Amino acid sequence: MDQYYLNLAYHLALQSEGNTSPNPSVGAVIVHSDQVIAQAFHPAAGSPHAEVLAIEQAGRRAAGATLYCSLEPCAHHGKTGPCVDAIINAKIAKVVFAAIDKNPQVNGRGAEILQQRGIHVKHLPIRLIDQFYEPFFQSFQSGRPYVYAKVAMTANGIISPADRNSRWITNETSLSWVHQLRARCDAILVGADTVIMDRPHLTVRAPGISRQITRIVLDNRFKLTPDDCSLLQNDAPILICGSDQAPPDKESIWKNTPVRTIRFSNAAALLTNLLEMGMRKVVLEGGQKVFTLFHSAGLIDEYILMTAPRLLTGRHFLNMFGGSEQSLSETKRYRMAPPLQLDGDVVLRLKRSV
Amino acid sequence: MDQYYLNLAYHLALQSEGNTSPNPSVGAVIVHSDQVIAQAFHPAAGSPHAEVLAIEQAGRRAAGATLYCSLEPCAHHGKTGPCVDAIINAKIAKVVFAAIDKNPQVNGRGAEILQQRGIHVKHLPIRLIDQFYEPFFQSFQSGRPYVYAKVAMTANGIISPADRNSRWITNETSLSWVHQLRARCDAILVGADTVIMDRPHLTVRAPGISRQITRIVLDNRFKLTPDDCSLLQNDAPILICGSDQAPPDKESIWKNTPVRTIRFSNAAALLTNLLEMGMRKVVLEGGQKVFTLFHSAGLIDEYILMTAPRLLTGRHFLNMFGGSEQSLSETKRYRMAPPLQLDGDVVLRLKRSV
Repeated sequence: MDQYYLNLAYHLALQSEGNTSPNPSVGAVIVHSDQVIAQAFHPAAGSPHAEVLAIEQAGRRAAGATLYCSLEPCAHHGKTGPCVDAIINAKIAKVVFAAIDKNPQVNGRGAEILQQRGIHVKHLPIRLIDQFYEPFFQSFQSGRPYVYAKVAMTANGIISPADRNSRWITNETSLSWVHQLRARCDAILVGADTVIMDRPHLTVRAPGISRQITRIVLDNRFKLTPDDCSLLQNDAPILICGSDQAPPDKESIWKNTPVRTIRFSNAAALLTNLLEMGMRKVVLEGGQKVFTLFHSAGLIDEYILMTAPRLLTGRHFLNMFGGSEQSLSETKRYRMAPPLQLDGDVVLRLKRSV
Repeated sequence: MDQYYLNLAYHLALQSEGNTSPNPSVGAVIVHSDQVIAQAFHPAAGSPHAEVLAIEQAGRRAAGATLYCSLEPCAHHGKTGPCVDAIINAKIAKVVFAAIDKNPQVNGRGAEILQQRGIHVKHLPIRLIDQFYEPFFQSFQSGRPYVYAKVAMTANGIISPADRNSRWITNETSLSWVHQLRARCDAILVGADTVIMDRPHLTVRAPGISRQITRIVLDNRFKLTPDDCSLLQNDAPILICGSDQAPPDKESIWKNTPVRTIRFSNAAALLTNLLEMGMRKVVLEGGQKVFTLFHSAGLIDEYILMTAPRLLTGRHFLNMFGGSEQSLSETKRYRMAPPLQLDGDVVLRLKRSV
């Protein structure tokens, strides 16, 4: 039954996915005498954690009960007090959790404290739940956000035809799926050319998702102007990143606008900067230059290829990548996740091999 | 139970797939008093049909029994007598078949004759079995072979890097799968450049498959020479197709070799010619020129994209297609079959929408 209750906690966690950043989404279930007496999820950063909400729900019946958490209970003071204190105070008898919190402030310490206080603690890893938290925790080890590269392509790998009109390669179902992906991220990053050519909004339109995520534009020479910038039609934050070589006068055009600007020396340094700004998951959405820059620097963790059952002929269409010529022996095999079928479109997801 | 026995017949048919051309593979099961008393498949063209073999196996017990066939029993004299005669003579009481034989010499006539002779006939269509026979029968309607285009590509759609060394994009499991595909076809077709660059053998190496299939080389100007022709290292038939504009002296180089040459005016006419030579299923295996020629002429029935979890950068790599520039609105959506996973590679199969 432990596995069953942990999966229940995981499904609660999924309900707040996209709303909790920079915190992970967590679900908690309290069980007493084989009955679920409380279930909760962490609704948003700054709100109480799932464990605390569940304990409040259970009230005095929490004493002697078992708490199931999708993630190890926290042991540190953040915006709220540590969950371990609430668990100890509520006289919970046993805690079962699925994923270890790899935040260096926790990383096993939550479990340790509980055990020291005589609470029975069980760590029961579940693959699906580990995969759920993997992108979130990877940033603690890598020192940069987890980077997705999301691209829509024809089945023969074309992201833009010669006329550069790439609306719409994929279908409506894929579009909704992309909004769900965006909702799980802290930022969308695109190149200035993509903003100028496609005039996108880059917002999150997904049921149950309230927050808007940062739109980042890579614009080495600050060539974008407020007139070009379709992103201004929407309230979500905008960050324009210029090269540290770019002249200062071009940047000043953004004074007295809601746009924030920063400078960067290279892609890796930019990502470190984004992590310092609290961004743990970033999705690159093109175009070719952006994909090639981050791919060639080995900075993409997961490639999400939204593939439409279309085929395009031509000579001046665009592949996802340009860049330097590679031979096959210079490429490596990624891990291919099971393909997702979305009403005729297929999502191929490639991750680094472990 | 009808469905169960038809599926059994279908699995028998699968066992001879690749060996029966130009006939379809057929399986037959005879059931009496809820017991399977005979099961057989058609082993090869010229050998007895599955129905006849099963009836021989059943002997006198065939009288009053039910015959299950993956395909409607034939009504015409080919290399062997019509199956309907054998069924009538054996006093089979009932015939259940899955797919209608769309060969114009049969096409419902088998069922009709049996019914006229007082045999209870039931047509029970099964989607998987219809799909199995679809490529075979399509040629009767279209007047040309069913054409597969099989290509190995990286996940970003590259079939050949700038150095033109495309061995090996995909893995060993994909390679075996391709041999199974070839075994179901009557010919493999490639361009002369592919023969010169890759020096392939284009043979069928699949367990249980004895016959070799015709290797067709599209060589407009007869530029291939016996020295370039790696295909000569193997016994399977070779057919070189030159343009009807090519000078005759180049063609004569193939006199006194096992190679046969023909001329063609355009891709559609070539396919009609191949059907007349008894080829019902042909697989195109590249390169870009061949794929673009047949695709642009609308002559490909099924695209089989063997996709490796690799990503390649470059500017001079090759896409599956060159040709004239298209906009997205000029492309159509194909039917995407459920993706197959082959040890990390993925097979995407696109078919024409019906």
